[in-house]
Amino acid sequence: MDQFFAPTSLAVYGLSSKARNTPRIIIDNCLRWGFRGRLFGINPTSSDTDVGGIRVYRSATDLPLVPDLAVLLIPARFVPQAMEDCARAGIKRLAIQAGGFNECSDQGTTLAEQVQRLARRHGIRFVGPNGLTLADTASGLCLPFVPAFPVRPGGFSLITQSGGLGLFLWNLLQDEQVGLAKFASIGNKLDLDEADFLDYLGRDPATRVIGLYLESIANGKRLIELAQEIDKPVIVYKANTTSAGGRAAMSHTASLGNDDAIIDTAFARAGIIRIQHLHEFISTAKAFELPPMRGPRIMAMSPAGGLGVAMADLCERQGFAFADPGPEFYTELAAIANAGIIRLSNPLDMGDLYQIDKYPLIFSHVLASPQVDGAVYVSQCPAMPEGGDDVFTAMFTTDITLEMTGAVRSSNKPLALALYGDGPTIAAMKKQSRIPIFNGPEEAVGALHRQMRFHARRAAGPFRPTVADRAWDPAAVTAWLRVHQGVIGEEALELLHLCGLASPPTAIARSAEEAAGLAGKIGFPVALKVVSPQAIHKTEAKGVLLNIASPSEAEAGFTRIRTNLAQYDPAAQFEGVRIMAMAPEGHDLFIGGLQDPAFGPVVFFGYGGILIEVLGDVERVLCPSSCEEIRQKMRRLKAWRILAGLRGRPAVDPEPFIAAVCSLSHVLAEHSEIRELDVNPVRITATGAILALDARLRNEHEKREKK
Amino acid sequence: MDQFFAPTSLAVYGLSSKARNTPRIIIDNCLRWGFRGRLFGINPTSSDTDVGGIRVYRSATDLPLVPDLAVLLIPARFVPQAMEDCARAGIKRLAIQAGGFNECSDQGTTLAEQVQRLARRHGIRFVGPNGLTLADTASGLCLPFVPAFPVRPGGFSLITQSGGLGLFLWNLLQDEQVGLAKFASIGNKLDLDEADFLDYLGRDPATRVIGLYLESIANGKRLIELAQEIDKPVIVYKANTTSAGGRAAMSHTASLGNDDAIIDTAFARAGIIRIQHLHEFISTAKAFELPPMRGPRIMAMSPAGGLGVAMADLCERQGFAFADPGPEFYTELAAIANAGIIRLSNPLDMGDLYQIDKYPLIFSHVLASPQVDGAVYVSQCPAMPEGGDDVFTAMFTTDITLEMTGAVRSSNKPLALALYGDGPTIAAMKKQSRIPIFNGPEEAVGALHRQMRFHARRAAGPFRPTVADRAWDPAAVTAWLRVHQGVIGEEALELLHLCGLASPPTAIARSAEEAAGLAGKIGFPVALKVVSPQAIHKTEAKGVLLNIASPSEAEAGFTRIRTNLAQYDPAAQFEGVRIMAMAPEGHDLFIGGLQDPAFGPVVFFGYGGILIEVLGDVERVLCPSSCEEIRQKMRRLKAWRILAGLRGRPAVDPEPFIAAVCSLSHVLAEHSEIRELDVNPVRITATGAILALDARLRNEHEKREKK
Repeated sequence: MDQFFAPTSLAVYGLSSKARNTPRIIIDNCLRWGFRGRLFGINPTSSDTDVGGIRVYRSATDLPLVPDLAVLLIPARFVPQAMEDCARAGIKRLAIQAGGFNECSDQGTTLAEQVQRLARRHGIRFVGPNGLTLADTASGLCLPFVPAFPVRPGGFSLITQSGGLGLFLWNLLQDEQVGLAKFASIGNKLDLDEADFLDYLGRDPATRVIGLYLESIANGKRLIELAQEIDKPVIVYKANTTSAGGRAAMSHTASLGNDDAIIDTAFARAGIIRIQHLHEFISTAKAFELPPMRGPRIMAMSPAGGLGVAMADLCERQGFAFADPGPEFYTELAAIANAGIIRLSNPLDMGDLYQIDKYPLIFSHVLASPQVDGAVYVSQCPAMPEGGDDVFTAMFTTDITLEMTGAVRSSNKPLALALYGDGPTIAAMKKQSRIPIFNGPEEAVGALHRQMRFHARRAAGPFRPTVADRAWDPAAVTAWLRVHQGVIGEEALELLHLCGLASPPTAIARSAEEAAGLAGKIGFPVALKVVSPQAIHKTEAKGVLLNIASPSEAEAGFTRIRTNLAQYDPAAQFEGVRIMAMAPEGHDLFIGGLQDPAFGPVVFFGYGGILIEVLGDVERVLCPSSCEEIRQKMRRLKAWRILAGLRGRPAVDPEPFIAAVCSLSHVLAEHSEIRELDVNPVRITATGAILALDARLRNEHEKREKK
Repeated sequence: MDQFFAPTSLAVYGLSSKARNTPRIIIDNCLRWGFRGRLFGINPTSSDTDVGGIRVYRSATDLPLVPDLAVLLIPARFVPQAMEDCARAGIKRLAIQAGGFNECSDQGTTLAEQVQRLARRHGIRFVGPNGLTLADTASGLCLPFVPAFPVRPGGFSLITQSGGLGLFLWNLLQDEQVGLAKFASIGNKLDLDEADFLDYLGRDPATRVIGLYLESIANGKRLIELAQEIDKPVIVYKANTTSAGGRAAMSHTASLGNDDAIIDTAFARAGIIRIQHLHEFISTAKAFELPPMRGPRIMAMSPAGGLGVAMADLCERQGFAFADPGPEFYTELAAIANAGIIRLSNPLDMGDLYQIDKYPLIFSHVLASPQVDGAVYVSQCPAMPEGGDDVFTAMFTTDITLEMTGAVRSSNKPLALALYGDGPTIAAMKKQSRIPIFNGPEEAVGALHRQMRFHARRAAGPFRPTVADRAWDPAAVTAWLRVHQGVIGEEALELLHLCGLASPPTAIARSAEEAAGLAGKIGFPVALKVVSPQAIHKTEAKGVLLNIASPSEAEAGFTRIRTNLAQYDPAAQFEGVRIMAMAPEGHDLFIGGLQDPAFGPVVFFGYGGILIEVLGDVERVLCPSSCEEIRQKMRRLKAWRILAGLRGRPAVDPEPFIAAVCSLSHVLAEHSEIRELDVNPVRITATGAILALDARLRNEHEKREKK
């Protein structure tokens, strides 16, 4: 991959001396950026031998050496023959910028498959097509075919699935003085994808923060694994989250949407910072230029009392804790400021302190407090009439970013500086300041919070799946799954039993007499439930009777259920009635499972009834999970308050349920043939026991084996 | 009020020739701004007679005329004597800028009261104290005591409860080229408050959009009434919404927080645009510089496909509908663009159209479509190497805002233009463009949506309370309230009955025998409920028995409830047992009421049980309300789906419940002595009947009369 970003030699296809020749922009960019590798042009149809000092050849085979990388900015239909040309010359790396592949037509899709086949056959790796491909401020490589000034070098690297959007971010980074390390516009990612670049940038010493703009996630599992391994902030904007966005993406990079909540779950586990606004790429990258915020205790400061109030609201909404540095701290502060601070509290209203020279002392005093993990300061640099000798002119025109940088370096704590002000003044300050300047309190507080959360996540150590307390028998599970295929109804309770999740004693009666007999054996009261492949929703088919208390009721119930089924669907196949011991009263929860196309098996769970039906009060974990992860997610359920004892009602022990979810997460991880699982309800009794009362699963073992 | 903003003469207290004399900044500002009224200085302790050409007098009584306005930027303790001086001279309007009043100490509070007394005694009106007070770009008045350039005149007027924050916004307005009409920093608003200024600005011809930054709302009812009358957008940032913010505000402008959800409710009714980010003052004001968006159908355009995707997500999340202009539209569009558009759809990816001269035709074509209510276009103006003759340089450096303005004017529809780009370029474009330039798609889409909602709200006409279908007897209600005072338990059902909300037949038994007899008269089954002032929560006292089916059960129940009460609280006063006919099964909702200190009576309602206890699934309306308003709010309840028929269960008619809420909203509006009301549960039966099953209220009639 190094040779993709820092090739010692580069061949540009399509270069010519014609007016508006776009490949020439690439050459110009590389020269402007100080690229020091050798440069060549290739053009089979031009008679040029030299374009602006660059030698042009008819074929790659004519080159004096085998270049590390070739760029293909030529019409899509010519790409295959250019690839053949590269193959003949021994070129192994391509940047394919041309559009016109699978993003646009069936013909393009055929062309895309051809390109993939050719690459495999000749051992060629490529980035693209349909992208701006690569740039690297260290090597001076700048392939994007839009005239570009050299950009400020720095630690931010960007992987983008949209070239145009990448260009926007690129310019925004420049305006905001966030330095760039590497840039990868991956387009249709027919070969190298976001995971390949993430893997590389994770190990790239020049890269300190990685941003990704994604419209689709091809291999979510790998992305998550990589992000967990990488000790750098990974910031992701995932577009294409709504149906309108989805429509647009289908035509843009032929993407498929991902389930948004699953993406959140996966990102959270991997410590990926998910942003919802494009500007947050910049603000978050800025926050990581500051020392880590190692705890939630923030101090908010401003010379405008109103901003202090607004900041306090913001900090609290974000989830910061307000630092309380104690009376001694404030006494010392008052001494520094000669009591010019309106109110010695947090937020600190410095509105009466008209001595700008005191400000650095205050910052340094605040950051030095062991009760403060970080601070935010909001002020302004308005355009002011010149020559004023008043305190305001002194206060608003003195640049104290150097002193602030000192306080940050000395304390090794973050001080997020937000400045309003007129464009040119702020732009100049951003250019020379050694600490980042945010564009407002919202931006500063939000970005600092993302930084803090990232460090907290990293401090907690990487996620490790743990096996639940409840053991299960892998061999028995495998055997059961081999025998039970397709859609399985209540029989699935047997599998759950093998996984350590019990259900009440049960048996199937084929006749009314048998129902009475089996119910007696199981012990009254019992529930009766229809067994029929057509009665998918047993309640709708009036196929469930509860609290059957005697043999005669059981007989009558059997007959009633059979009659109800016939009425519900005259063609339904009646296979009998399941007798199940009535479970003790308690709370009814549920556990579900599915295979996400991007992130693999996912287990979800929540409280049944109204909470899930009306509110979708569901949490989810990737498989395999850990009891600790599930426990944390349980606490985020709105239903948690019910289990924890609402209005003085007794609390319920959630641990057996957590263990069951955890076990199932491991079973799903090991058995991808379980396509869907639905255990509903799972009853938690007053004594803390849990019982699966009904279940269903879809097992596509065979299908998978046939593949 | 005109003379506050455009005084023909102004006296500035405290003016002197001393270095760093702050009142002199006011004079300088007014001169710089072109203020044409007469200017005087007043300073009882200075020997100056002239400061920079301005005559200084010892006392206001020495002035050659009575100035329209005097500014007091002097220490708080000198304010009363200056006011006396003004009173003697006949000055009737003051801008009191000094801090040190009720925002800061008990002593300051005493001083504040003194200032209010003096003003009342002498018929003086004032703005402040503790604020920057007033500025007006038309009259050239600029009282804020910070050196200020003349600002761009325009239609945006700002009322702010924080001077510092006002100054920030002031500068931000300038940077973003949003013109200012009037500025009022109202500080502690001891006399003129936000409502006074809102009233004035609502009628001010120079003001087209009004922004308010508020930390507290003193007279919410008046604010709402004014906002409803004003046919201009009113944008409010309400700080001090969280507990941390609340703490800060207490020390900042001695504010009291308001219930945030009630504020939302009140603002929504009045069509006030509530913003959560300070920057939204600017972006929303910009959106109102565009023609109204008269419907939700938006067209999103960008030369970057990725931005199209991100915009589609944004538009959908905001609640826009995607315009579908039909195949003919796209055929014509393709003809304009020579098929250079990547995909003819919405969002429109113009990434392959490298002819900037085609863009205006496209904008004009899009806006002309009757299927399009408005559009958003996102592009960039990066700093580019000079002299490029390539398509990108042409595309990104050509300013087409004039053509866009043309398309907007011609269609009378909004086109929100968002541009990324380097600071100076964008700043220059903002300065000369006749349509606003937004700083990114999030800002553009959000602001346009606020604009659209405002116009939709205005088109719907002002809110009118309507009396519910159910009539009630005002005289009987008044009489009942006169008799029943303090905290009333289930007896409150009588009041509800008078208000048209029925409850099941009921009677109170004093003995077990009486219980059996009354239950027989009412008709079995009945419910038994303890009557005792100590059993506030009857269930906790085990004071409720349901489904009592016979006289003997009623007797036994009476005794059991008495015993349970004695066990619950041996000192409790047992007043009997209420017998109530069992209500038919159904849905249990609730209705509550309270008096909000700022907005007056509020009625709230929702589904009982888990939904309110766990989720706070509540909606609320100001009193009096209308059935239509309540109906709309009902549909926003999460519980609405239950009433509308969850999973094929029958839907319930919500109208009788809506009518009851509406009736109670009128009763509460007429009877402020009802401090709190709690009707819980209110059962909606399967036949749509509604029955109040329990109620409580706090009636402080006497207290009010004593006042």
